[in-house]
Amino acid sequence: MRCSAQEVYNRLVNDDKILELQGQIQFHFGDVEIIVKQKDVVGNIIQEWLQGWFDKRGIEYASSQNTQMPPDFFLNPDNHTEGLLEVKAFNRSASPGFDIADFRMYEEEIIDKPYMLDVDYLIFGYDMSNTGIVTIKNLWIKNLWIKKVWEITRCMKEWALNLQVKQNVVHKIRPGVWYSTQRGNYPMFNCLEDFISAVEETVYQNPKTHNDAANWKINFLTSYQEHYGKRLNIPRWSDIVEKYRG
Amino acid sequence: MRCSAQEVYNRLVNDDKILELQGQIQFHFGDVEIIVKQKDVVGNIIQEWLQGWFDKRGIEYASSQNTQMPPDFFLNPDNHTEGLLEVKAFNRSASPGFDIADFRMYEEEIIDKPYMLDVDYLIFGYDMSNTGIVTIKNLWIKNLWIKKVWEITRCMKEWALNLQVKQNVVHKIRPGVWYSTQRGNYPMFNCLEDFISAVEETVYQNPKTHNDAANWKINFLTSYQEHYGKRLNIPRWSDIVEKYRG
Repeated sequence: MRCSAQEVYNRLVNDDKILELQGQIQFHFGDVEIIVKQKDVVGNIIQEWLQGWFDKRGIEYASSQNTQMPPDFFLNPDNHTEGLLEVKAFNRSASPGFDIADFRMYEEEIIDKPYMLDVDYLIFGYDMSNTGIVTIKNLWIKNLWIKKVWEITRCMKEWALNLQVKQNVVHKIRPGVWYSTQRGNYPMFNCLEDFISAVEETVYQNPKTHNDAANWKINFLTSYQEHYGKRLNIPRWSDIVEKYRG
Repeated sequence: MRCSAQEVYNRLVNDDKILELQGQIQFHFGDVEIIVKQKDVVGNIIQEWLQGWFDKRGIEYASSQNTQMPPDFFLNPDNHTEGLLEVKAFNRSASPGFDIADFRMYEEEIIDKPYMLDVDYLIFGYDMSNTGIVTIKNLWIKNLWIKKVWEITRCMKEWALNLQVKQNVVHKIRPGVWYSTQRGNYPMFNCLEDFISAVEETVYQNPKTHNDAANWKINFLTSYQEHYGKRLNIPRWSDIVEKYRG
């Protein structure tokens, strides 16, 4: 059976009632069996679990061989340009700790494969109790999301994207806290076009990609138009920065 | 029942035949159950497993509250100066990836608590197959060890101890590959006295502890004698360095 990312989300929430389930991690070795109580383990195995769930429910998929870049799954095994699904998981009692992607690989990848911008992010916010019970909720709030990349990213003070920067070298694109209602937080991007504007500005800002900046937008727009048959209208970052940095 | 560290080791190997066991990590969530196939998870849960094994076998212990420093377990719950057991685990197809301790905390701790030098390290070298089967062996070689700290540490080229050094700042004491038979490897220390000599030399070498070096040895010897009623004879590092650096 073929499912879209939204259908996967709906089945998990409505049919399987994932937000009401309780799970646990067990380690069996000899005749001793323990319940694992380490929270950081959960994030790594949710993707394996989803694959098991696909198998059990007869949902078609192909796994990606490239673990460095999204997506994790192709929901249309015959066409790797649509139905792209990326799985993320984070401990809901902390902030989202996962990476979106390496910035430099990402800005090159979306020119090469503009359909990467249409990846659906299926995000699990999990909780583990002191006794090792795993849930996808926290204080009865839903902690499963299906999001596009611009809905979970934002700018930061010095950069047009929220980045991990080590000793002046740009590494990963990091998510914002898209579910936060705290005042003073930078808002997520409103649309694909504004996200692309921020990527272009970051290509320009980043010393390692600065020299590509002159052609980056034209290359991206050409590639996007070739794939989607539609010319995007990308605003300049300086024209929209106030919306995001306030 | 009370057991020494050596008795724990013997029971695991001889009575429970741990080297012949196969284990696995499972994640149950809803009606989907998967076998976890991530190797780095194993290292973190062996200690929890050993605690489950103590409980099941009725072996007495107290857990340590300080996760930063050895030991993990006190095998004599009434006397926290003896029967100290530290559990380490590493993926046997790579090198030992665990830390012994933060150097600075360690050199202070062994003056404060000289019996920390008598901690027994129970070390599991595990393997995980492609299908997620966990074993404590690798090519039929025994991969469970009981060791003292000087039997798993060595010097390195620039330092008297094998250290993790980041931007000229000394961080962790790192283990050597004590089971290696490769030629050209630096050998492990022969005895407690030589290990202490290397710690003292490192206190001196390390800019952050250099000023403590003048009194470090005398403070250590006094404290050790107070606890054990015996004066150690610590060689100078320059007198023994050739044994270890060749």
